[in-house]
Amino acid sequence: MSSSAGPGFVAVDSGGSGLRVVVGAAGRGPLARGASGEPVRTGSRGIDPGHLMEQLVPMARGLAAEAGIGRLDTAAVGAAGLASLGDALRAELPGALARELGVRRVALAADAVTAYVGALGPRPGAVIAAGTGLIAVGTDLTGWRRADGWGHLLGDCGGGAWIGRAGLEAALRAHDGRGGGSGRLLACAEEMFGPAAALPGHLYPRTDRAAVLASFAPRVAECADDDAVAADILRAAARHMADSAAAVYPETGAGAGAVEPLVALTGGLFNMGAPLLAPLDEELAKRLPGARRVAAKGNPLHGAVCIATDLATGSFTLPSDEKMLCVTSPAGGGDTVAPGADT
Amino acid sequence: MSSSAGPGFVAVDSGGSGLRVVVGAAGRGPLARGASGEPVRTGSRGIDPGHLMEQLVPMARGLAAEAGIGRLDTAAVGAAGLASLGDALRAELPGALARELGVRRVALAADAVTAYVGALGPRPGAVIAAGTGLIAVGTDLTGWRRADGWGHLLGDCGGGAWIGRAGLEAALRAHDGRGGGSGRLLACAEEMFGPAAALPGHLYPRTDRAAVLASFAPRVAECADDDAVAADILRAAARHMADSAAAVYPETGAGAGAVEPLVALTGGLFNMGAPLLAPLDEELAKRLPGARRVAAKGNPLHGAVCIATDLATGSFTLPSDEKMLCVTSPAGGGDTVAPGADT
Repeated sequence: MSSSAGPGFVAVDSGGSGLRVVVGAAGRGPLARGASGEPVRTGSRGIDPGHLMEQLVPMARGLAAEAGIGRLDTAAVGAAGLASLGDALRAELPGALARELGVRRVALAADAVTAYVGALGPRPGAVIAAGTGLIAVGTDLTGWRRADGWGHLLGDCGGGAWIGRAGLEAALRAHDGRGGGSGRLLACAEEMFGPAAALPGHLYPRTDRAAVLASFAPRVAECADDDAVAADILRAAARHMADSAAAVYPETGAGAGAVEPLVALTGGLFNMGAPLLAPLDEELAKRLPGARRVAAKGNPLHGAVCIATDLATGSFTLPSDEKMLCVTSPAGGGDTVAPGADT
Repeated sequence: MSSSAGPGFVAVDSGGSGLRVVVGAAGRGPLARGASGEPVRTGSRGIDPGHLMEQLVPMARGLAAEAGIGRLDTAAVGAAGLASLGDALRAELPGALARELGVRRVALAADAVTAYVGALGPRPGAVIAAGTGLIAVGTDLTGWRRADGWGHLLGDCGGGAWIGRAGLEAALRAHDGRGGGSGRLLACAEEMFGPAAALPGHLYPRTDRAAVLASFAPRVAECADDDAVAADILRAAARHMADSAAAVYPETGAGAGAVEPLVALTGGLFNMGAPLLAPLDEELAKRLPGARRVAAKGNPLHGAVCIATDLATGSFTLPSDEKMLCVTSPAGGGDTVAPGADT
């Protein structure tokens, strides 16, 4: 392992498909990347800090070696579920990172915050992050606001599982002869899952029910051009998204010197393109007529890299938040990265 | 055990809270009742016939002894989930009942069918059965139609979980400052489940998520008098129910001699009274202007008793249906009920 270079950082995006990790150095940017295929477990104490560390420590050591980084003194970790299931992570992760990797500065962020920073950087605005779920996050740089992100049974209105569920409901309405059904969506559902009668058996026994529902969302988008029911579902999704963005958008009118807040979209759901984006632009124009929409600069992992870089260079300016973004300088940091046995 | 009386029947309602069982005799009606507190397990083969028999056989023997019934020659079993998860039950239950209890005639019915018969008896009409879930069933006495009953992620539109979920979603809209929220429902949700931020942690780890959602439905009804959001939720539920009833209501105009089809409501959800029943009457009047609504005569267990009685006396006239109602005369029936070791 080469240890000649200066101190570096590790940036982490922990989500539904596992950890994605970047090791880099301030001024030199990202130098090495890796990914685990295993999502961090959630147990009775919430997100399991031990399981995250088990995966992260050998990866971080290996990537530091690959990048020629001798010491990792900064870590930025964005984690799905942090706001509601992150108590153990907040309590234990900074100390564990100090002990295991010698880290001196830790930023622990909700994945919605890394999504925000990845999309807009450290400036005021609102970001809609949508994949299987949906959350909107906004900041005026003095604090954070979030809207929705409550999961597929309590909200995530307009997200992938929401759209897919609405599409399957419309399919089954057609099957039953109830009003509001779509024969086109029924045909798509049967093509994808088999006979309608077997659909409950495909869904309810699974543990990834939200993902199964979301897997039907692209079919709803495909039908929207010539199926009014599908188009209505995407219009309603767009309305929900605009509701959430409006709820977190910073108060404006702070004076001539204030930076104009922006709106950005991030996440895989927006890959469905025009069938969703066209109504969304219209709904955003109605709800936030003064807000300029810009393309997202990068993804949540990019956001974690930005946070780590700013933290390493002392230029970190984002507001802290008990649940969504905490920055700590754990005791015990500062050691050299111990050589990993598996590198 | 007294074995002096003539042959009897066993009627069963298998649902979310376990088995409810009646033993009786044609002409003498129900003679003994029992209940198990344990819902029949659903495994990879669907509803587990072995687990149903494990609970039913000792209960049926005990109740037959209590009622002085020496032989049970007829069984009517209404089972939740039969239509979609009942393949193993259909294949194995009649033979098992013949072997274990000496039964000669078995009717195996979806719980929606026993609900129908319990409510309206063997006459044409439509029944809305609503508890945690919701299904509508109709018959013109030549066949059965069903609408909805797809479970809390695919439908059950207007049922208890649907109403509760909509109420909690509105509560969280208010929490977030999104449009369409209800501060009143938020206060109810926090009174019931604690701080809003903890709500996902109360719901998602549970296996009975639909029941947790449905537990909030009565609070929505309580708020409907002076909260427009809550009233709108119940109005939308009523509209969904009327959609389902209209989809299964028999075609009329069959001539002067035809019996007028009726509509009835059954299930615990209707205990919420006027806040739901008032909009439902209005929506039914719009969708089915000619249909007369009558009070349900009895519950699904009463429906199973009616089916067993008609089967025992040779007066059974309801149409069979591959998924919803099958009547068989299994080989091997006709033995005396073996004495139960546990009676």
